[in-house]
Amino acid sequence: MEDIFEEYAAMVRERLYRMFPEEKLPQGEVSDAARYSLSAGGKRVRPLLTLAFCAMCGGKPEKAVDAACAVEYMHTFSLIHDDMPCMDNDDLRRGKPSCHKAFGETAALLAGDLLAILPFETIAASRDISPAAAVKCVNALSHYCGVYGMIGGQQIDTQKAGEELPGELLLSMYSMKTSALLKAACLCGVYCAEPGEYEQKYEQAAAEYAENLGLAFQIIDDILDVTSSPEVLGKAVGNDADNDKHTYVRTYGLEAAKEAAARYTDKAVSALEAFGESEDVKRFTLALLGRNN
Amino acid sequence: MEDIFEEYAAMVRERLYRMFPEEKLPQGEVSDAARYSLSAGGKRVRPLLTLAFCAMCGGKPEKAVDAACAVEYMHTFSLIHDDMPCMDNDDLRRGKPSCHKAFGETAALLAGDLLAILPFETIAASRDISPAAAVKCVNALSHYCGVYGMIGGQQIDTQKAGEELPGELLLSMYSMKTSALLKAACLCGVYCAEPGEYEQKYEQAAAEYAENLGLAFQIIDDILDVTSSPEVLGKAVGNDADNDKHTYVRTYGLEAAKEAAARYTDKAVSALEAFGESEDVKRFTLALLGRNN
Repeated sequence: MEDIFEEYAAMVRERLYRMFPEEKLPQGEVSDAARYSLSAGGKRVRPLLTLAFCAMCGGKPEKAVDAACAVEYMHTFSLIHDDMPCMDNDDLRRGKPSCHKAFGETAALLAGDLLAILPFETIAASRDISPAAAVKCVNALSHYCGVYGMIGGQQIDTQKAGEELPGELLLSMYSMKTSALLKAACLCGVYCAEPGEYEQKYEQAAAEYAENLGLAFQIIDDILDVTSSPEVLGKAVGNDADNDKHTYVRTYGLEAAKEAAARYTDKAVSALEAFGESEDVKRFTLALLGRNN
Repeated sequence: MEDIFEEYAAMVRERLYRMFPEEKLPQGEVSDAARYSLSAGGKRVRPLLTLAFCAMCGGKPEKAVDAACAVEYMHTFSLIHDDMPCMDNDDLRRGKPSCHKAFGETAALLAGDLLAILPFETIAASRDISPAAAVKCVNALSHYCGVYGMIGGQQIDTQKAGEELPGELLLSMYSMKTSALLKAACLCGVYCAEPGEYEQKYEQAAAEYAENLGLAFQIIDDILDVTSSPEVLGKAVGNDADNDKHTYVRTYGLEAAKEAAARYTDKAVSALEAFGESEDVKRFTLALLGRNN
């Protein structure tokens, strides 16, 4: 039953590099850097969720492929800039040199900028998305990536580095840094399906799912940073402590972190009940969060 | 007659900071950095053109204020990132410390990112712009700021630094770096006016105007870098030579540069003939390019 997500993954893969053909023109180092970070891949969780939510809302997933690629471009932009020396200063990303290590800071800065703007062209120029749905997708994506979302979370993270962060602020930082883009991903799926009278109900359920998935996601990431190895994780471990970063583990301890991760996972899964057929997404979510039960 | 542009400037000023209130929340250093660079001001050429083109196409300029602000956010993003050490490494911008000098590299990177994404929320969430027009504005802005526009121009500029740049490539770099965003600014004005059957004709004239304005603009900038002073210019001079940058003056000499600037200025002005009442914009354009005749 996992294979529906393999179909989704194939649909995204097929469209994702359209803007970055191997043969260059007018591309160059910056496009190569963007392509490099895009192809470093990862699980493609966000675009898969865009397609899955479109399907759960009764839409053809094909209608949401451009929106799904847009979400993945945005995610990749955030990774490239987050790794840069003036941010988290990570040399490794998914087991490969991070973008600025492979292409230099100038190309990484511009590749990130490129991938922050491309999502909006991808949605606005899409033949699959109606103008009404496109405006909603653009609005959700830009809003949840801005000062009230992803970038606002980065701001808290970088500003508070060093000083003690109260638990509440830590959670709202996680919500902004991680849940926000997941919200945009799921909402784009809802909007591309154009479910009419059900749209508001689906919007709320998608936001509830994404909020809790993001928190579980982030807390599990904190846990792995202290319990895993570079080989398993594909990136350096112990980084959080080295960079004096705020983590759930550091604030509440490992056991409390594991309990919280399980609690948010359950909440995310229950939010799926608002949708008709959600078994695939439920299974995908549990597998994603390391709960193969 | 210049005062219509003063009215336009007031309309932009009134709306431009809406997203960056003095009282913080959830803002912080990053929003302050964005506000700082936004308020450094400059002539607001791009947003004024958005309003002027909306008016020239028979639309109420009020309908285009959000789109005008979006264009200015995008322009400010490009200035912040262009000044950073891994780019042009400019310490001064409009007579004030550049963003990364005043707020540090981390805040400058995130403030730029914020201002690259905010334009799309500003357009998509606008009450003044119809969904059909909003999609066209988003498409134009994202396209002309991407790899085929502003960022593509940056890519050529940074890649070719040092080596000799053929004159043709220099001009296409100027077109991408400078004309492209001006095109987006003028086109957003056209789309917000929703001129129906005339849209295509106005699109072409707006693109022709912006293309030539951008080239004249950039060449005059090259000329001022060798003939002006920091006091007059509000930024360091001689920077281009110091950074071994490609300029029209360096490639063709000062006299040829002056002739080219005049030629492109004339072309820009003639493109305005496609519009009914264009006297104000013609006068604005000539004043802007230092030709007060």
